[in-house]
Amino acid sequence: MIESLFRPALSRMQPYAPGEQAAPGKTIKLNTNENPYPPAPEVVKAIQEAASGPLNRYPDPVATSFRRAAADALGLPGPEWILAGNGSDEILTILVRGFVGEGQHLRLPYPSYILYRTLADIQGAAWQQTPFENDWKLPAAFGENEDDLRLVLLPNPNSPSGTLVPKNEVASIADSLDCPLIVDEAYVDFANENCLDLVQENERVLVTRTLSKSYGLAGMRFGFLVAQPHVVAELSKIKDSYNCDAISIAAATAAVSSQDWLSDIVAKLNATRGRMETRLTEMGFAVTPSHANFVWCQHPDGNHQSRYEYLKKNQILVRYMSFPDWGDGLRISVGTDDQIDACLMMLERFS
Amino acid sequence: MIESLFRPALSRMQPYAPGEQAAPGKTIKLNTNENPYPPAPEVVKAIQEAASGPLNRYPDPVATSFRRAAADALGLPGPEWILAGNGSDEILTILVRGFVGEGQHLRLPYPSYILYRTLADIQGAAWQQTPFENDWKLPAAFGENEDDLRLVLLPNPNSPSGTLVPKNEVASIADSLDCPLIVDEAYVDFANENCLDLVQENERVLVTRTLSKSYGLAGMRFGFLVAQPHVVAELSKIKDSYNCDAISIAAATAAVSSQDWLSDIVAKLNATRGRMETRLTEMGFAVTPSHANFVWCQHPDGNHQSRYEYLKKNQILVRYMSFPDWGDGLRISVGTDDQIDACLMMLERFS
Repeated sequence: MIESLFRPALSRMQPYAPGEQAAPGKTIKLNTNENPYPPAPEVVKAIQEAASGPLNRYPDPVATSFRRAAADALGLPGPEWILAGNGSDEILTILVRGFVGEGQHLRLPYPSYILYRTLADIQGAAWQQTPFENDWKLPAAFGENEDDLRLVLLPNPNSPSGTLVPKNEVASIADSLDCPLIVDEAYVDFANENCLDLVQENERVLVTRTLSKSYGLAGMRFGFLVAQPHVVAELSKIKDSYNCDAISIAAATAAVSSQDWLSDIVAKLNATRGRMETRLTEMGFAVTPSHANFVWCQHPDGNHQSRYEYLKKNQILVRYMSFPDWGDGLRISVGTDDQIDACLMMLERFS
Repeated sequence: MIESLFRPALSRMQPYAPGEQAAPGKTIKLNTNENPYPPAPEVVKAIQEAASGPLNRYPDPVATSFRRAAADALGLPGPEWILAGNGSDEILTILVRGFVGEGQHLRLPYPSYILYRTLADIQGAAWQQTPFENDWKLPAAFGENEDDLRLVLLPNPNSPSGTLVPKNEVASIADSLDCPLIVDEAYVDFANENCLDLVQENERVLVTRTLSKSYGLAGMRFGFLVAQPHVVAELSKIKDSYNCDAISIAAATAAVSSQDWLSDIVAKLNATRGRMETRLTEMGFAVTPSHANFVWCQHPDGNHQSRYEYLKKNQILVRYMSFPDWGDGLRISVGTDDQIDACLMMLERFS
C-alpha cells in the first residue's frame, strides 16, 4: 500500500487548515484579514494588459520589474535585495527548506501564526513555541541559542494579537541569536514601524512581506523576501525556476508602484480599526491595541465561541481562535465601515 | 557568517539553469519548447474577466473549477483525482518532498530532464541515472528495486529525445517497482498515447501534466497531478494553502475546456514537426522521431555547438545540449512554419 511509501514526517502530520471559505453571497467575511477594498485601479489595468501579452512564453524567472519597483518604493539599495515568491507562503517554505534540516528545530512565539509549525512538520523538523509574556512581550528565552535551533520566526505585527515588538527589541533578539531571524511583516503596512533597516545591519535578519493584505491582492498570490544579496542568491536555488507568473508579476509591479493608493487605504482601514477598538471596549471586551488590519478581543464572560456562532448565523464570519493552555477569543478583520457597523451591532445584540 | 547556516545540501548544490532568455525583439525562440501560438481566445477572455473579480479575496485553495473541467476533459472519474499546482514544477517539488527523505534516492533515465536532479539536491537526497539503451529503450534496470530508492521519474515523452516509452512497458515498470513511478507527461498532447489509464489501475502510478506547452500558457504557471484520490489527499498537505491564484485558476479552467482548440493547435504543430524531421534528415542529420513539440537531431560531423552559435548570431535560439559520457546535439522546438523555415534555411547555409 502506498500509505507506507510517503515520508513518515508527512504521514504523521495534520494538514494546515486555512480560514473558512464563506458561501458566496451576502456573507460579511471578517475572518482571514483580507482587505475589504479592491486593489489599486492600476493593478487591474496591468492585468488586463498582461493578458494580451505573450502568455505562451515563460515569464521573467526573477520578476525583475517587480523587484526594481519594490526596491524603489521601500528605499532598498537595489533589486538584488529582494526575492519574489508565489505568496509569502512560498517564501516561508523556501526559508524553512533553506535553513532547517530533518530533525532540526525552528522556534516561534505563542500564540502566533501556526503555519510555521506546519512548515516544520512537512520538513520533518521540530518546532518549539516560546510563550509571550504579559502584554505580548517577548521573553529573553526567545533569543537564546540551542544546538539544534536553526531558524526563529517572528510575525511582527503578530497574529492573533495585532501587537508589535519594537524594532530595537527585534534587533537585540537578532544579535543574540546565532541562527537567522525571520521577521514576518505581513501586516506591517498597518503599523508605524518596520524592520527593513535591520536587514542592512545584520545578514541574519530576513524580512518577509505579502501583497495579500494591505495591497488587496490575496487572490493574486505574491509575496517577497528582503535579505542581503548573498542570502537572496543562495535561497534562490530552492525556488522553482518560474515561480511567479507573467500576470502576477505585472500586477505586483503595479501594486508596489501605487504607494499613494496604499497610504490612503491604510489610513482608511486604520480609522475603522480605531472605531472598532473603541466600540468593542465600550461593550466590555478586553481589546488588544492593534497594529494590523484585525482586532483581537476577549470578553470577560468567556462566551467567544457562542458569539462566533451567533455572528455566523447572521452571515458574519469572524475568526474564533482557541490556543491550548492559553485561552481563546475573537479575531475580527477590519472590513469596510458598513461591514464593521453590522458586526458591532450584532455583537451588541448577543446575549 | 550566514554561509554556514544554510542546510549543507543547499550549499553543495548548483542551481538549476533554465533555458536562455532571448533578448526581446526579433529573436526566434526555439529553445524552451514553448508553444509559438498564443493560448485559446477563451483563456484571454477568462483572465480579463477574473481581473475584475474579487482579487482582494483569497482564491479557491483547491482550484475546484479547474479540477472539474480537467476531470471532464480527460475522462477521469472526478476532480478528487487531480491536484493543481503552480506549474508542474511545483507538482514535481511536492512529489519529491512527499516521497524522498534526506539521504534517500530517486531515479531518472539518462539523458532526460535534469530538473529532477536539482529537486533531489535541494531535498538533500541522492539521484541515480539509468542510461537509455539504443533507440531510447529503457533497460530492465530502470524497474529494479533498491533499499533506498523512493521515487522513479520518467518523462514520457522524454526530453531531449522526444521519444515515448509505450504504455504497456510503463505498466510493467510500475508493476515491478515497489516505490511510486512518476510519469511526467509534459509533452504528451503531442503523442498518440498517454498513461492516464494506468493511474486507475495502480495507485503507485502518478501522472504530471502542464499547461505550459500544448496549451500555450508557459507565462501562466499551471500544472497538475493525476493520482488516486487518497494519494492526492496526502500530497495536498505539502502544498501551500493557496498555491494557485484566482486568475490562473480561471485561465486554466478556460484552457482545459478548449479541447477543440487544443486538437487544432497540436495538429498544426505536429504537421510542422513532420516537415522539420524530413528536411533535417535530408540535410544529413540523424533525427530522432519525435512525439513532442521539439526535435532532437545530431549531425555526423559533430559540429553541434558551432551550429548553435551560428544560429544564435542570426537571431535564432535553439538548445545545444551536451550530456557527459553520452554525446551532444541540438534540440529544436517546433515553432511556426515561418520560424522553422528560417531556422532550416540557416542550418542549410551553415558550413
